[in-house]
Amino acid sequence: MNFELTREFIEELKSAIDAQDKRKTASMLQDFHPADIVEVYEELNLEEAQFVFILLEPMRAADVIVELEEDDRERLLENVPGDILARKFIDRMDSDDAADIIAELPDDVKADVLSNIADREHAGDIADLLNYDEDTAGGLMAKELITVNENWTVATCLREMRGQAQDIDEIYFVYVIDNDGILKGTLSLKKLLLTKSDQVADVYDKDVISVSVDASAEEVANIMNKYDLVALPVIDGIGRLKGRITIDDVVDVIREEAERDYQMASGISSDVEASDNVWQLLRARLPWLMIGMIGGVFGAKVIELYEGQLSLYPEMAFFIPLIAAMGGNVGIQSSAIIVQGLASNSLGIESNFKKLMKELGVAMLNGLSLAAILLLYNFIDSDSLALTVTVSSALLVVIIFASVFGTFVPLGLNKLKIDPALATGPFITTVNDIMGLLLYFLIGHVFYGFWG
Amino acid sequence: MNFELTREFIEELKSAIDAQDKRKTASMLQDFHPADIVEVYEELNLEEAQFVFILLEPMRAADVIVELEEDDRERLLENVPGDILARKFIDRMDSDDAADIIAELPDDVKADVLSNIADREHAGDIADLLNYDEDTAGGLMAKELITVNENWTVATCLREMRGQAQDIDEIYFVYVIDNDGILKGTLSLKKLLLTKSDQVADVYDKDVISVSVDASAEEVANIMNKYDLVALPVIDGIGRLKGRITIDDVVDVIREEAERDYQMASGISSDVEASDNVWQLLRARLPWLMIGMIGGVFGAKVIELYEGQLSLYPEMAFFIPLIAAMGGNVGIQSSAIIVQGLASNSLGIESNFKKLMKELGVAMLNGLSLAAILLLYNFIDSDSLALTVTVSSALLVVIIFASVFGTFVPLGLNKLKIDPALATGPFITTVNDIMGLLLYFLIGHVFYGFWG
Repeated sequence: MNFELTREFIEELKSAIDAQDKRKTASMLQDFHPADIVEVYEELNLEEAQFVFILLEPMRAADVIVELEEDDRERLLENVPGDILARKFIDRMDSDDAADIIAELPDDVKADVLSNIADREHAGDIADLLNYDEDTAGGLMAKELITVNENWTVATCLREMRGQAQDIDEIYFVYVIDNDGILKGTLSLKKLLLTKSDQVADVYDKDVISVSVDASAEEVANIMNKYDLVALPVIDGIGRLKGRITIDDVVDVIREEAERDYQMASGISSDVEASDNVWQLLRARLPWLMIGMIGGVFGAKVIELYEGQLSLYPEMAFFIPLIAAMGGNVGIQSSAIIVQGLASNSLGIESNFKKLMKELGVAMLNGLSLAAILLLYNFIDSDSLALTVTVSSALLVVIIFASVFGTFVPLGLNKLKIDPALATGPFITTVNDIMGLLLYFLIGHVFYGFWG
Repeated sequence: MNFELTREFIEELKSAIDAQDKRKTASMLQDFHPADIVEVYEELNLEEAQFVFILLEPMRAADVIVELEEDDRERLLENVPGDILARKFIDRMDSDDAADIIAELPDDVKADVLSNIADREHAGDIADLLNYDEDTAGGLMAKELITVNENWTVATCLREMRGQAQDIDEIYFVYVIDNDGILKGTLSLKKLLLTKSDQVADVYDKDVISVSVDASAEEVANIMNKYDLVALPVIDGIGRLKGRITIDDVVDVIREEAERDYQMASGISSDVEASDNVWQLLRARLPWLMIGMIGGVFGAKVIELYEGQLSLYPEMAFFIPLIAAMGGNVGIQSSAIIVQGLASNSLGIESNFKKLMKELGVAMLNGLSLAAILLLYNFIDSDSLALTVTVSSALLVVIIFASVFGTFVPLGLNKLKIDPALATGPFITTVNDIMGLLLYFLIGHVFYGFWG
């Protein structure tokens, strides 16, 4: 049951493929779930993957195509002609998966595929879905629905459902519409099993949560998560039922969203995985490192500005890394809390001013505790009173600055409709590093003036 | 439809509560979904929340209790006697929610609640669930199941299902068991609607994915995500069906997991939200800042060690922040990629050695590009050849060290069954800062020996 890919298995499979042994290759993968075959694919090169692909029955091959990562899919389907793609695979997919895959194809292949889908209703559904932006409810939804009319009897309803169910993988909800196609409610299978009434109107649930086709994917995820929904109906501007979104599609949205925020905070600019190749990893990482390095060069200029002071009091150099690092650490904490709150829509209705005030409170307490500890340490360890006072004062000021800056920037970006996650990671760290150095030397200049 | 809490609404509600106006308060919340009431609660103080709470019908109050954050729930239920808790609320909850809430209670209240649940079968189910660790499949599952025997006829099956469905909110799957209670497969409602056979044995699907009661929550989330499951049956050591996990519970696991990894990487040690109070935020943040500060003090000691060199060549101080920051940045990138890969189980079967080699490749390329750019910059900007060569060489070495360290530590922790996310954030940054400084001055010592 618990599927685990082993290196031995992959080696055996590869040698079967090498020997062009179709029987053995097919039998090794016979009981595999499509999602497991995808894991196998990730270990194969293109040629090997193609060999395996043509051995799969069309239904499973269609499932495998759906489950593959976008770039793997592109490579695999590159040389498959449009009409084969349509007849062998797209015809067997749900409309949402089919639309996602067709959207990735070059324009000429796209038209070719659409015109070759045998089931014209299916083709129409897919063409409709292609009009929606992929990050909206319309882009996430599927057209496969079981609908009943609010004026039907339970018996008609069951008969019609039997007819509609042929085309649909799994039934989670039956939607109730009126004569104009306006969504009126849901009919739970449980109630249908239990009812003694013979009118749909008496049985269905009128409290239905829905989203508009143009709601963002994030909004969809937040609604389904908040209300613990398994399926969510999608309606147009006048309330007509257009499709439904199931939770498994949204789980991917939630996971990708959270992972993306984390990657941004870690200075990784595009979606990469450990299994990607060296070039993909490099492309995702180098840009942020460049920003960090440019920040470092600015930092060097700041220190150069105070070279005179530094050669008089070389011990000031000792605490440069501490001050720079603490500014970065505090800024990342502050921005992470805001970015997560914005993502999960859990910031509440506190005004931004109140949030900044609270952050200021936390910063004061953090700053005072840490500055006091460092004061004590330097008082014992260092001979220079000026250094002792400078380092602790600078630490306090830097922590306060970094907290406010780390809170303010993501909130500001969010107001400007720019992804606040951009603010976390290297950008905040770098700015705080430079500001920290500047504040440190400014404060040092003042205190060494007194005691130096 | 799209619920949005406004400050005006909260103010109006608070003044109705203030005036002890039960009618108005109740009517203002009348059409609210329990999840919306939870959002309202987060804006109220304890006294106000309690006033609202006693106005809710028991069924909705039970739903609200389930949806509340753990600490809010604790405060709200603190003064509610065990027998009321049992009879008014717990009796109305699904077994998994009931068990989660009872597990949070003090031991004496726990026993009191369990003995006061009217439905003894329900009480038994809850008591069973309390035995499982909350981070396992057993801790996530609910006992509410619709099961049919593989030897039944379709007619018996429908009759029995009607009986069982009374107690269950929603039917996603019907599970098929044998006479010993061993899970044999699933019966989809679609097939039941469409079948012409009269034997369950002919209709049910024998390919069923299940997990063991002691599987970890993370494993459950990965399986449900990978296979796009809405419900997952849970079995014991000999294959008997013990319960089922639904996707909505797992969405929370996935979200919390991703958020926790992100928070750890940002140096936030316990689960906090922007809406938490100053003390909670402080407690989550101060410990990591302390670690960062201790690291900074070590960094100061490293620089002090090279004070002589620094007073001879004060320009070496300029690039201290750059070197320290780049070590931190690179280390965070490397560890984030590994931590995410481990969390989503997408590392593939590459050996750890191969992963380190790949990371080394990325590090070499990152390091060489950045070091070359910096070399060019300093060649133009700086008069000191020794400084120019030192800074670029140190940058290259630091990037390589930080990459390998950032990859190795989470992999190592994972081998030792310690949460690899611990390795990201301040710990990696701090170690890399210190090592970076040490390497920088060591290299400086050598090169200034040549050219200084």
